[in-house]
Amino acid sequence: MVTRNADRLARYERRTGWLLTAAAVLFLVVYAWPILDPDLPPALVRASSIANITIWIGFGADYLVRLTLAPSKRRFLRTHILDLVVLVLPLLRPLRALRVVTALARMNRASLSFRGQTTMYVVGAVTLLGFVGALAVLDAERNSENANIASFGDALWWASTTITTVGYGDRFPTTTEGRIAGVALMIGGIALVGTITAALASWFVEHIGSVEKANAETQDEVASLVAELKAIRTELAAAKDTSQPEG
Amino acid sequence: MVTRNADRLARYERRTGWLLTAAAVLFLVVYAWPILDPDLPPALVRASSIANITIWIGFGADYLVRLTLAPSKRRFLRTHILDLVVLVLPLLRPLRALRVVTALARMNRASLSFRGQTTMYVVGAVTLLGFVGALAVLDAERNSENANIASFGDALWWASTTITTVGYGDRFPTTTEGRIAGVALMIGGIALVGTITAALASWFVEHIGSVEKANAETQDEVASLVAELKAIRTELAAAKDTSQPEG
Amino acid sequence: MVTRNADRLARYERRTGWLLTAAAVLFLVVYAWPILDPDLPPALVRASSIANITIWIGFGADYLVRLTLAPSKRRFLRTHILDLVVLVLPLLRPLRALRVVTALARMNRASLSFRGQTTMYVVGAVTLLGFVGALAVLDAERNSENANIASFGDALWWASTTITTVGYGDRFPTTTEGRIAGVALMIGGIALVGTITAALASWFVEHIGSVEKANAETQDEVASLVAELKAIRTELAAAKDTSQPEG
Amino acid sequence: MVTRNADRLARYERRTGWLLTAAAVLFLVVYAWPILDPDLPPALVRASSIANITIWIGFGADYLVRLTLAPSKRRFLRTHILDLVVLVLPLLRPLRALRVVTALARMNRASLSFRGQTTMYVVGAVTLLGFVGALAVLDAERNSENANIASFGDALWWASTTITTVGYGDRFPTTTEGRIAGVALMIGGIALVGTITAALASWFVEHIGSVEKANAETQDEVASLVAELKAIRTELAAAKDTSQPEG
Repeated sequence: MVTRNADRLARYERRTGWLLTAAAVLFLVVYAWPILDPDLPPALVRASSIANITIWIGFGADYLVRLTLAPSKRRFLRTHILDLVVLVLPLLRPLRALRVVTALARMNRASLSFRGQTTMYVVGAVTLLGFVGALAVLDAERNSENANIASFGDALWWASTTITTVGYGDRFPTTTEGRIAGVALMIGGIALVGTITAALASWFVEHIGSVEKANAETQDEVASLVAELKAIRTELAAAKDTSQPEG
Repeated sequence: MVTRNADRLARYERRTGWLLTAAAVLFLVVYAWPILDPDLPPALVRASSIANITIWIGFGADYLVRLTLAPSKRRFLRTHILDLVVLVLPLLRPLRALRVVTALARMNRASLSFRGQTTMYVVGAVTLLGFVGALAVLDAERNSENANIASFGDALWWASTTITTVGYGDRFPTTTEGRIAGVALMIGGIALVGTITAALASWFVEHIGSVEKANAETQDEVASLVAELKAIRTELAAAKDTSQPEG
Repeated sequence: MVTRNADRLARYERRTGWLLTAAAVLFLVVYAWPILDPDLPPALVRASSIANITIWIGFGADYLVRLTLAPSKRRFLRTHILDLVVLVLPLLRPLRALRVVTALARMNRASLSFRGQTTMYVVGAVTLLGFVGALAVLDAERNSENANIASFGDALWWASTTITTVGYGDRFPTTTEGRIAGVALMIGGIALVGTITAALASWFVEHIGSVEKANAETQDEVASLVAELKAIRTELAAAKDTSQPEG
Repeated sequence: MVTRNADRLARYERRTGWLLTAAAVLFLVVYAWPILDPDLPPALVRASSIANITIWIGFGADYLVRLTLAPSKRRFLRTHILDLVVLVLPLLRPLRALRVVTALARMNRASLSFRGQTTMYVVGAVTLLGFVGALAVLDAERNSENANIASFGDALWWASTTITTVGYGDRFPTTTEGRIAGVALMIGGIALVGTITAALASWFVEHIGSVEKANAETQDEVASLVAELKAIRTELAAAKDTSQPEG
């Protein structure tokens, strides 16, 4: 019964995967559009808002279906905390778009090493985080009085200085919502710098002469052992040949 | 005599561990409360202050008892410098709260790898350091004339930009106490970035194909050696069988 | 036919290599001069501009010749994206100068380890990127009204604070062109910090006692195996000697 | 002749080592004093200046003596570039003080691992660099009109934000000398962050289960090989014993 449910969950996720990714892309569009175009006619703003809510309901229904199909509810709840958080906290809604990166990452899984895959995923996720963070900050700051982020260009520039931990301070959020987006970008920045450094480090380690040499030397000695043994075996066979006729 | 004292020290620390952690939590409460609520009635402010001093005396007594029980006083003094520093320097008192993280870290020691444990501990310690540093800066700056950190929100935001080494400079400490707290957060930030990067790097190194492959190849060759030897032994036994009847 | 073309491509690249590097150095001169000396007589400004366009045509012709000589056009297009981008996007023209670093890196390839080579290349490339980025920002900002980067000294100082991710914010670009140059420097900065950290990490890993010791121990044990086998072989030969006379 | 000179150079360096370290400490004092105390009586300022020049002459004489004693002049010039640069460029004079760190590092060489030694050296050198950089910036900025670093407290705070790459930008150098000191601190900061991260990474790598396990498994298999061989040898001896009586 448990395995059958696990099968049904896997089948369900395989079938709905692309649908949910499409929903995440659509979400990105209806989230970004009203922010990027402040002169959007009210009808389209309302349409965006309705699409946004519809997608939210869709993600919620998907979560409930998967919870129902999961063999162990407790384990599902524990391993899908981000899914729940993104559903419940309105402020973290934009993170739903990260699904797009997961889908892209799944596409070229075959051609890359483990390290290459992880690095590509982190670079993709942080780039998307920067884009979404810029949107979120622009949305939060635009109507604030003392704010200094007024255009999407400013917001993207601020996001770049934040993710790379440069932080000039010519642009910075002043509202609570904007600051929360800022902290998310800072964490993303540490992840980005950390992953790139770590990938380079492991690449260097892979090419360390002495470690490779030591391994090669061990293999050479073992190979000479095999040769030695073959020689013994031949001699042994010869010895048997000379002693057998006597029998 | 020395081992008996070491036993008594270990037993004492096992017994008082949770009490001291509770004292550290209480300290965090009585330290944070008067800073977060400037309108606290004077009676509660005085109560907080008394609790604070009582906890300080408690930690001091604990230090003296452990020093008395330690088999080698010199070694105890050398390995517990932080304990002494936190007792003597009023400015570093807030670091007492780090005990909470140690206690939490001890709880899930079993389920995590060495790297996972260290990373969790550093992330926990730096998060607590950020919280305590924000309190310390707010306490120091609030009554300064030219200061720009006036609310706990500002202080938390400043602490975030400092720990991630972004440093916009829209908020920064101007008093000596505030700057010392700032330097502590910067050091914490380097520890945080360094630990996360290092954990990722060692995770990548663990998955380096060539190193694993080289090890696997060596093991394969050694296994073929064992097979070769088994074959020799069988032939040897056969040779003995054919030569023995002659004897 | 394919190998013959690959040969011709390699021969062509060997012959034209130094010419293109010389063109990259000349490009650096004619790019930097009019920016560094605003009082340059119009005739020289025009001459610089003509030299710049000529070099651009030369790089374009080189790209087309190499594409024609390449055995697999598709593969050439895929592995030479940067060459094409640098040709097509006017904003990224300064990156052509990176060719100089590649040429320098090729010169001392022999004397350095893989890690040393990579580190020297990244340090060289990021230093050149900083110089070229400072020029680009100065060019973009000088005529902007609200700009704060007015001299090459300011521009170099700003580039230093950006590449090291310090980012004081006393100088920062305000135009779109300047901000794009800024983002390029930030990415270069992450590459620089990452490479230096990674080189240090792999250097430390190379000196880890336990790994070296484990390898040495394995090699010692294998050596004792070889000795053991030699002894067996001698005994076997002796056994044959004693049994053969009987034959 | 060459070895005798190398001997004499080593003997000379052993003898004068502590003298030069003492000179470096004295240099630090006479360099720092007039900067830290602007109200120093002119007589003492002049005395400091004379001591400074005397130490400079001493370091110069030491360099010439060592160059004379060196077996290969060319090699000495190539491996002691920093010594020459510190002598010739007045701006880099403060770096002479780094000798103190080298001396301290030499003292506890025995008790620490290679990684621990390097980390301690870098932390020591960067701390001293921060102190000396703060002095240099204070010296350069104090008399500048638009400067914002006016006290040693400001200078130390600025040095801290620079070395940790936080860079608030509330304090920053405005003169060319100050900016050069700033770039030196930024490079020191990258070295500091890089070294700490790298030390942590190699520490984690040292504890990676799988690598250690793979090594241990190989060693186990080799040990079982040795046992197998011993058994063969015993059987072989037994076989010889049974076949020999026949001879």
